Amino acid sequence: MGLTAAEAILRQLLVLGAGQSATFLIAQLLADAEAEDWFVTVGDLDEDLARQCVLDHPRGEAVRFDVNDAGHRSRQIDSSDVVIDMLPAAFQDLVAWDCVNQCRHMVSVSYRDQAVRDLDLDAKRQGILLLCEMGLDPGIDHMSAMSLIRRLRAKGGRIVGFRSYGSGIPAPNQPQNPLRYVITWDPRNVVMAGFEGAQYMEKGNIKLVPYHQVFQHTWAVDVDGVGSLEAYANRDAMSYMQSFGLEHVHTMIRGTMRYPGWSETWAQIVRLGLPNETLRIPNLADRTYAEVMKMFLPLNVSGAPLEMRIGRFLHISPTGRIMENLRWLGLLSDQRIGCEGDTAAAMLIHLLKTRLPLTPELRDMVILLHEIEVEYPDLGTSERIRSTLVAKGEPGGFTAMAKTVGLPVAIAVKLLLRGELTLTGSLIPTHPSICVPILEEIDAAGLRFVETTETM
Amino acid sequence: MGLTAAEAILRQLLVLGAGQSATFLIAQLLADAEAEDWFVTVGDLDEDLARQCVLDHPRGEAVRFDVNDAGHRSRQIDSSDVVIDMLPAAFQDLVAWDCVNQCRHMVSVSYRDQAVRDLDLDAKRQGILLLCEMGLDPGIDHMSAMSLIRRLRAKGGRIVGFRSYGSGIPAPNQPQNPLRYVITWDPRNVVMAGFEGAQYMEKGNIKLVPYHQVFQHTWAVDVDGVGSLEAYANRDAMSYMQSFGLEHVHTMIRGTMRYPGWSETWAQIVRLGLPNETLRIPNLADRTYAEVMKMFLPLNVSGAPLEMRIGRFLHISPTGRIMENLRWLGLLSDQRIGCEGDTAAAMLIHLLKTRLPLTPELRDMVILLHEIEVEYPDLGTSERIRSTLVAKGEPGGFTAMAKTVGLPVAIAVKLLLRGELTLTGSLIPTHPSICVPILEEIDAAGLRFVETTETM
Repeated sequence: MGLTAAEAILRQLLVLGAGQSATFLIAQLLADAEAEDWFVTVGDLDEDLARQCVLDHPRGEAVRFDVNDAGHRSRQIDSSDVVIDMLPAAFQDLVAWDCVNQCRHMVSVSYRDQAVRDLDLDAKRQGILLLCEMGLDPGIDHMSAMSLIRRLRAKGGRIVGFRSYGSGIPAPNQPQNPLRYVITWDPRNVVMAGFEGAQYMEKGNIKLVPYHQVFQHTWAVDVDGVGSLEAYANRDAMSYMQSFGLEHVHTMIRGTMRYPGWSETWAQIVRLGLPNETLRIPNLADRTYAEVMKMFLPLNVSGAPLEMRIGRFLHISPTGRIMENLRWLGLLSDQRIGCEGDTAAAMLIHLLKTRLPLTPELRDMVILLHEIEVEYPDLGTSERIRSTLVAKGEPGGFTAMAKTVGLPVAIAVKLLLRGELTLTGSLIPTHPSICVPILEEIDAAGLRFVETTETM
Repeated sequence: MGLTAAEAILRQLLVLGAGQSATFLIAQLLADAEAEDWFVTVGDLDEDLARQCVLDHPRGEAVRFDVNDAGHRSRQIDSSDVVIDMLPAAFQDLVAWDCVNQCRHMVSVSYRDQAVRDLDLDAKRQGILLLCEMGLDPGIDHMSAMSLIRRLRAKGGRIVGFRSYGSGIPAPNQPQNPLRYVITWDPRNVVMAGFEGAQYMEKGNIKLVPYHQVFQHTWAVDVDGVGSLEAYANRDAMSYMQSFGLEHVHTMIRGTMRYPGWSETWAQIVRLGLPNETLRIPNLADRTYAEVMKMFLPLNVSGAPLEMRIGRFLHISPTGRIMENLRWLGLLSDQRIGCEGDTAAAMLIHLLKTRLPLTPELRDMVILLHEIEVEYPDLGTSERIRSTLVAKGEPGGFTAMAKTVGLPVAIAVKLLLRGELTLTGSLIPTHPSICVPILEEIDAAGLRFVETTETM
């Protein structure tokens, strides 16, 4: 479509964060920059990382960006037309505040912060859009679910059950590490997953799961072409009932899927208390992993070896699979930690980055799966619809994670700057004017949901 | 002492928060207002609460204060000489930021937030003091510990062990509720106690305790005149080693004391997952306590009664003391909750306020206890010093909690406005120019530490 005269002015895009899940997005924005008349500024605390994404593209620039430098943050945002927030979730509200104050649109891939939700009215007053949860999960999951829900309703269906799962894991049939996992996104989010507990509803029963039980409270989910995975409850599924218009379902579940075995190991890491971002361990970098493990165990009065102590404390086998995984990860080793940061969570982040990297020969895989139960009162029938997206990364190219996180963001930015997306306020992508065009482009890019219907 | 001409100008004091532990402080500031030439503005979200503290005092004023209203907050702070922060800890950084920006001193009773610690240099540049942890615990505990440590060092002692305990509980020999506890401070802090885990060092072994174990990891402490209490680890004791100059101790413990039995009950409330401030339970106020309890339990497939289900899930007796306490608290009841807020933590806060109030005929009690191991290398001897403060509230008058929290704050404010306290930066009260005069006045007010020395 043609641009109007007013829109044909050079637009300034500011991408905050150049980590591994931002690489595809930045490449895509730069690829569109000439045709759309954009200039793309990429800011990261690590300027080199930003530079590696921009290279010497004539319509791109890399800058050092420290989100905690209020003056610099505010100036950068002020000179942009749209701000794309790829930073860790904790900074979403800082960026959103500046965007509201300076009348700039924001698109963010992180879960919408309560503070950002509360900015809805302010954003509307300023005539701007704060569009959050715009990546894969959260992101494509919401859009594809809403699209499916709308289609079933148009057929006279009444949604009674909603289960939605997301996953970013290694593709099957490749050499695997013992944990069958690789890091394709912010490892901090892997380490702190579940720490606020989880809530869902199953057959009318609301269930709250405290952090120390999230990874013990798992169930099996079959994915066509992949096999049986395990799922744990993902945050507060109940909070989406209203945004999805699903106030009357009996089942409302959001889950995260892993290969079987991840959760039983991570559950023990949580029981030990290692994912802690608050307590600062003196001289952490100079200590060994075994030393830190001992800090989480009762005193050794019997002189037992470390595996025995861990096994006794957690009531797990000192020679079983979980202990093997802990050892393989390096948690029992006498090696110096040498990490940045001084919390046990920082140590885990360092360990996951070191032990679970996505090496160039490996492909990652992204899965979204919706399972929707629908009744057709006029027909007196019921169906269970399963809609599945499986995407795999290109070895040596973009990961499936980077592509599926970045693509919806890039499309949303384009719609926004072309004036085709005119909503304002603090939103997540459930509105048809966001879902419909973005899902079409995603589908055209080869990211396709496969649907099966089972009569109940 | 006389005031210089410059100091004889009317000074504006702003007290933020008029909750139960601020009552003595406000009375004290108003009592001193005429002599010191002060005007005291008390702000609370609940203006009535502020008004009850100020009454019709000619040198006082009550205002409605919403800390989240940035404009009002900033204007109020701007028109004050010193800001006294008695708000929940989460707001300390907001207040401190404004104080730094507007060159106003701040005195706060809450634990110093990391963000406020990081404002040290900015505060120094602005020539202001951000004095945190200025109540009882944290507050008097730090000052009395530092004073004792300095005295022992002056005698040639080398501190090798440091244990410090605080407690706010009902006075003994009174009718007690089954939990032997009453609410004398912000019930939110009781409900969320320990949620960031705890860290300490004992005989050279650093120990980290995750949240779900804090209340199971208890030990007995004898207090002269009170008897045997139970202690649980209080936050990050290690973080005080540097501020106390105790880098070379083998033992560094901070604990919170309760009557025996509190912790074993609260441990189960934590294991259930009830202290959660994040997950919002739909229509919480209209549900019953029993209904919410069931949300934290596995599905009831056998039709067992609630006590049986809780007992099985937690591995506790369905008819034992802990279950009796849960029932007495009201957690098993079919009563409508009717609380403000929509989290299980909000429900617990409501329950504690309802079930554990300090009724007018009851006295509360505050305890501080330091246990210090000291070696005298020149003499080849060692001692264990125990220093204990026990203070009881006046029935119908001020609580011991309000008095011991408020008195050090009131003295610090006086020193600051008289120009006798000239430190700047972000501090906690460990410096002699704070400790010495404040401890003298506290002692003169009848809050005395009793010391015993045991040769080892």
